[in-house]
Amino acid sequence: MSLLKFSASKVHDFVSESHINSLKSKIESCNTLLHSGEGKGNDFLGWVDLPSSITPALIEEIKASAEVLRSKAEIVIVIGIGGSYLGAKSVLDALSNNFNLLVKDRKDPIVLFAGQNISEDYMHELVELIQDRDIATVVISKSGTTTEPAIAFRVIKDIIEKKYGKAEAATRIVAVTDGERGALRTLANGEGYKTFVIADNIGGRFSVLTPVGLLPLAVAGVDISEFVAGATEMEQQTGADVKFEDNIAAQYAATRFALYNSGKKIEILASYEPKLQYIAEWWKQLYGESEGKDGKGIFPASVNLTADLHSMGQYIQDGERTLFETVLHIEKPNNKFAIPANEDNLDGLNFLAGRSLTDVNHNAEAGTMLAHVDGGVPNISISLESINARSIGALLYFFEKACGICCYALDVNPFDQPGVEAYKKNMFALLGKPGFEAEGEELRKRL
Amino acid sequence: MSLLKFSASKVHDFVSESHINSLKSKIESCNTLLHSGEGKGNDFLGWVDLPSSITPALIEEIKASAEVLRSKAEIVIVIGIGGSYLGAKSVLDALSNNFNLLVKDRKDPIVLFAGQNISEDYMHELVELIQDRDIATVVISKSGTTTEPAIAFRVIKDIIEKKYGKAEAATRIVAVTDGERGALRTLANGEGYKTFVIADNIGGRFSVLTPVGLLPLAVAGVDISEFVAGATEMEQQTGADVKFEDNIAAQYAATRFALYNSGKKIEILASYEPKLQYIAEWWKQLYGESEGKDGKGIFPASVNLTADLHSMGQYIQDGERTLFETVLHIEKPNNKFAIPANEDNLDGLNFLAGRSLTDVNHNAEAGTMLAHVDGGVPNISISLESINARSIGALLYFFEKACGICCYALDVNPFDQPGVEAYKKNMFALLGKPGFEAEGEELRKRL
Repeated sequence: MSLLKFSASKVHDFVSESHINSLKSKIESCNTLLHSGEGKGNDFLGWVDLPSSITPALIEEIKASAEVLRSKAEIVIVIGIGGSYLGAKSVLDALSNNFNLLVKDRKDPIVLFAGQNISEDYMHELVELIQDRDIATVVISKSGTTTEPAIAFRVIKDIIEKKYGKAEAATRIVAVTDGERGALRTLANGEGYKTFVIADNIGGRFSVLTPVGLLPLAVAGVDISEFVAGATEMEQQTGADVKFEDNIAAQYAATRFALYNSGKKIEILASYEPKLQYIAEWWKQLYGESEGKDGKGIFPASVNLTADLHSMGQYIQDGERTLFETVLHIEKPNNKFAIPANEDNLDGLNFLAGRSLTDVNHNAEAGTMLAHVDGGVPNISISLESINARSIGALLYFFEKACGICCYALDVNPFDQPGVEAYKKNMFALLGKPGFEAEGEELRKRL
Repeated sequence: MSLLKFSASKVHDFVSESHINSLKSKIESCNTLLHSGEGKGNDFLGWVDLPSSITPALIEEIKASAEVLRSKAEIVIVIGIGGSYLGAKSVLDALSNNFNLLVKDRKDPIVLFAGQNISEDYMHELVELIQDRDIATVVISKSGTTTEPAIAFRVIKDIIEKKYGKAEAATRIVAVTDGERGALRTLANGEGYKTFVIADNIGGRFSVLTPVGLLPLAVAGVDISEFVAGATEMEQQTGADVKFEDNIAAQYAATRFALYNSGKKIEILASYEPKLQYIAEWWKQLYGESEGKDGKGIFPASVNLTADLHSMGQYIQDGERTLFETVLHIEKPNNKFAIPANEDNLDGLNFLAGRSLTDVNHNAEAGTMLAHVDGGVPNISISLESINARSIGALLYFFEKACGICCYALDVNPFDQPGVEAYKKNMFALLGKPGFEAEGEELRKRL
């Protein structure tokens, strides 16, 4: 049985099944392009057959390195931004206790993130927090010069070296960076840090199955073998030789492409499990940064239900009719909790007594889906048997594959991000970075 | 000086200043309608002059009740959904340490939320967490029968009563509910709980300045007097007698109304402080649920920067040109942190050494704003001197007032949420609630 199920049956009132199926050859050829390497951005296709090419030796090396940090630190600070942050953050949240930071007698270190913002209060409070705790860090940056993580690493490196001395510090710092070049590679080689390589042919938002994602996850105690196994399974089920009828990534891509062309400009990823909030953030980066260019692309948004049924729910039901939903359905919870009976039954809920919360949650989901469809919102369903390392690995690879296909269908390069450079250039100029003086003067006039 | 500043100067390349000013009389009359009570939904205008009508006696009563819970519990569970969750959650996050749950030797109890979802894992893990801790609860529900919080309250009430006995339990449970009717009122009166009243004329998403928001905030140690004072200041600065040129809520309303009519269908609330993430969630409920009806309304979305510049940033810069941004600018951080120098300067950042992180953050913000404007995205700026109880109080009232005005300009009722009922009705029917049997059968056929 597949780790994921896909259904577009609640889309067919808006875009017919036969129309979606008519896209079959277009979509299949887009999938083939990802495998043949003849499409746009083909320097960055290393993720396509990545899961199956991860060797047991690499997994063991990551686990061993993680074990060193786990044995030394109660807090491990993972420094990175974009794909070097959201991949690990999203999987970690999905697989952790909802109250992870409060759990007593923990066996796993706490993983915190830095370098994903430039907030002075955030840095001050982080530094204050780690004063009297044992710490270690994983610093993730291809170049080592990206402003946010580079600043954070300056700070954390100083603290670790002052606390433990330079020799011990070198055992508490692991760098994930370029194999040969760049500031962080040079530093790591010089200081003797353990390092892992960011491949040249895998971009940040497709990097969760590289050491960029795997090392922080292993540090936090996630079973990365299972995570990779799930992704490998999905890689096999979405290969170039898998026909459309059996390829759920191709089906998801065809469905959203058809919806976009029918005028649905916003896709909302919805989940009824609070742990999946950052899976949606990761998904937003993947799709927003891949598709959103040349004036095109579906705008990715997300909701956490049922909380947001009492919030964005009204808009989804009755606002502008330019959106569709993709709902992450979880078949089984990892724990059991039944609704208690109550003698007085003042709240009138005794008809639910003894039933599981998941029973109610699933009926809320089904009821919402029908209500939204009736309100004019096509609904896609992606179903996982339960939330675990294997199913989440499958889910992320599924989204990556469908994203690559969609971008080729839209005729955009899935793997560049020219728009991200615009803010960086302006920031450097305004900050007075050497070499940007003239631009800085021009920009300041406009403020 | 006002607690907030508003600027639309980076909108005028898209919608001219003179066009926005031409909306002056329309917008002013919408503001007047909120005060005269002659507009749509005028049963729910209690929030308009709420801040100035909060008595010192009510503040003291809330503080005294909070003090009881603070003295008894290390964890206080706030049970509520929608406006009974997001108001307190958003302000609490904004005013707390970024690593609040990890701070040692804390003087304030930890506030956790329940009843905002129906996740079985969430409930299981919450119950497990509180087994060996001293707890109390604030339960917030007008009717006492809303499914999510009613289920959570059944569970938490049972635990507190088993742990402490019924008499002591009654001192650890505070109910915020209807003044006279409903399941929770009946129960609270019967058990002798301390209660606070949810007024009939204030809807959930406008309730943060009522005990719904104030009590949980006081429990967490927030200075609610300052919070209310900030809101009161903004109430005075946005009154019906304040002319358009001086009324920043009217200006925000006019600007977004003009942008919407010019084809900008998505508003992204952006912030460079991670603590403000849930202020954006609260804002999404306020605007999404108020405006999103009759096939109309701006779709509210949010980003946390600079993290999301390496994520949604690409879409914002280069995707479909149907969006605008509203940026929350914070002038001063609450703490100081300078960027360290580094002898080797491998990362090339020594030109920043000794400068504050906020300096970099502000230049990232300014650079991004100019880049996005150049990319076709109008930018609105809302500026706070710093993040504190007073400025956040002002900000939330500002958003409420502008929202009411906008909805009247759009000719929608700001205060109802007919679409939220659709999912509830379906859920009850699918769950087999007595009285919904026939509908349930019909719906099941469609699944």
